[in-house]
Amino acid sequence: MKLAVLGVGLVGGSIGLAAKARGLGSEVAGFDPDDATLDRALELGALDVAASGVADAVSGADLVFCAAPVNSLPGLVAEALAATDDGTGVSDVGSTKLGIAEAVAGLEAASRFIGGHPLAGAETAGVEHSRPDLFEGARWFLTPTERSEGVIFDRLHNFVADLGARPQAIDAAEHDRAMATISHLPHVLANVLASRAADTLAAGERRPEVGRSFRDTTRVAGANPSIWGDIFAANAGAIADEVDAVIEKLEQASSTLRAGDAGQLSAWQSAAAADRHALLDVGHPGGELFELRLGVENRPGVVAEIALALGRAGVNIEDMSLAPSSEQRSGAISLWIAGPEEAVRAGAIVSELGHSVSTVSGGS
Amino acid sequence: MKLAVLGVGLVGGSIGLAAKARGLGSEVAGFDPDDATLDRALELGALDVAASGVADAVSGADLVFCAAPVNSLPGLVAEALAATDDGTGVSDVGSTKLGIAEAVAGLEAASRFIGGHPLAGAETAGVEHSRPDLFEGARWFLTPTERSEGVIFDRLHNFVADLGARPQAIDAAEHDRAMATISHLPHVLANVLASRAADTLAAGERRPEVGRSFRDTTRVAGANPSIWGDIFAANAGAIADEVDAVIEKLEQASSTLRAGDAGQLSAWQSAAAADRHALLDVGHPGGELFELRLGVENRPGVVAEIALALGRAGVNIEDMSLAPSSEQRSGAISLWIAGPEEAVRAGAIVSELGHSVSTVSGGS
Repeated sequence: MKLAVLGVGLVGGSIGLAAKARGLGSEVAGFDPDDATLDRALELGALDVAASGVADAVSGADLVFCAAPVNSLPGLVAEALAATDDGTGVSDVGSTKLGIAEAVAGLEAASRFIGGHPLAGAETAGVEHSRPDLFEGARWFLTPTERSEGVIFDRLHNFVADLGARPQAIDAAEHDRAMATISHLPHVLANVLASRAADTLAAGERRPEVGRSFRDTTRVAGANPSIWGDIFAANAGAIADEVDAVIEKLEQASSTLRAGDAGQLSAWQSAAAADRHALLDVGHPGGELFELRLGVENRPGVVAEIALALGRAGVNIEDMSLAPSSEQRSGAISLWIAGPEEAVRAGAIVSELGHSVSTVSGGS
Repeated sequence: MKLAVLGVGLVGGSIGLAAKARGLGSEVAGFDPDDATLDRALELGALDVAASGVADAVSGADLVFCAAPVNSLPGLVAEALAATDDGTGVSDVGSTKLGIAEAVAGLEAASRFIGGHPLAGAETAGVEHSRPDLFEGARWFLTPTERSEGVIFDRLHNFVADLGARPQAIDAAEHDRAMATISHLPHVLANVLASRAADTLAAGERRPEVGRSFRDTTRVAGANPSIWGDIFAANAGAIADEVDAVIEKLEQASSTLRAGDAGQLSAWQSAAAADRHALLDVGHPGGELFELRLGVENRPGVVAEIALALGRAGVNIEDMSLAPSSEQRSGAISLWIAGPEEAVRAGAIVSELGHSVSTVSGGS
């Protein structure tokens, strides 16, 4: 498989290193507008070829990863699609997905683009910090649409899994709302807490040192200002909605505090413990792999439809394989799901979508 | 020195273990209303004597530590003061200080009580978790008032330092405001974030697992509901003020987000980074110890006045020694301060209060 990486920072460089460490790419070509970055990526072994431009890098690639800052992604994806033909899938690694999906939707080659977002590496930057194990065990969201080509989703999904990540299909708008809550909102609250503490404590002569609760709660305050300025801007509406919801909750908290009832405050604390526990419990299935063989109509969007339905239900697709029939009107899809309960759930979900399912026990 | 510990949970038990490990107490007596707790404390070696009641425990003690839940402290401190005479100092370890200070102020023996608050162990509870090194390097706030007896402050300050903690004098009201910002507010924000994420994500079928930023920012969410219910109630007004200030900041953040200017958002992020950095830098002086010898009038409140002035300026008193003169109208106080710059600052502050100061280089 031939890979191209456009933008060779921490994530782009790590894709190259991981693909090479795992023997996934016969050639990794890359381009970066910064010559020094490109040279360093070659030296570090993240790339085989330093290309002279986007068209040069993507020529003949099976998969192209656009790994530039969020605000330059629409132009870069369009350029990569324009410079490639039917055989090439294009993805990105931006941390918001609706903007890029809308920007690409109008392009003729939109069916070859599937957005992506690995949950890794948002706190540091630069090709210097690239590592082959950056994606090990990390969630990697993919945002196929009904126009996405099944064969490209299949290739991208399996490549991401082969990098060591755990791919999950999700609707782009839903992704951005979920990230607003569980990733962007913590950054906003950390910033505001740091700012409030600086206000109060810097005003007097004395500033008591801070304890562990403050350190942990503000750990992400001020992380990487240029990257986070772009992330906030790209998902501004969804984050502002979350901030408004938190303001409402804080107004309730302020009233509860002023009422000063220790029992009520203790109950509030217990509810928070239960909330956090439930959230941290999510997403750790496992166990034996089961193969689900699906008979499907060979029509556009069928793979995305299945992947999104399973993603919505929280079912993880550990591996995937497509086998179009010779007459091209129907085909078979194999999905590997970890754990018997999850496999049964997956079978039910896929059946409800109208596909035939048979289960083959045993791993891929 | 004879010690008494009233309430033998994590903090009370750890005071006993640390005092015995460091050879500070000839006898550690303790009382707890729960018999099983008291037995376990004996077994663990946190106490030498399991007393039959408060009066039995405190009889003849040099220092008494009240380490019960915040809402039972006023009664317990009053009982300990009533059961002891002039030779006994009484302190507590509650995480808020104004309430107890006001409750004790009306008592005749108030001059023998000095509030305290070690920044350690707020997240677990129970004598089972006691450790002799719980206070190692931890800040331990002391809240003397102008009525506090100098000899008791001196004894308490040095005992706390000998436990391995770093004592700092602070006004009770100021302590509670500072804690509201740097300790209680992080807990409120962590609770609200966990609650908001549970709302949004539990509503749908799919709940994406959360990443590291969410984990860190919510780490203290729901910590120990019964202890924290009391802490919130005891400092409710100050915490609610902080919450209101944060609401204002979040309203600004929401507007900035909706304006969607990446440059402005990036600048906001940079300011948060600077705020956090400044806060985490506080409180880590060090270096050679300098002895400051102070000539002081022997009047009530003079020790508290000096300790509070240095505390306000962020100067750490590493060690302290009182030497009243034979005629009892004046006396000498030696303070040990780490680092030449800090020692010079301390000298200036004490001079401004009208005391004579001479500096003797070299440690205690």
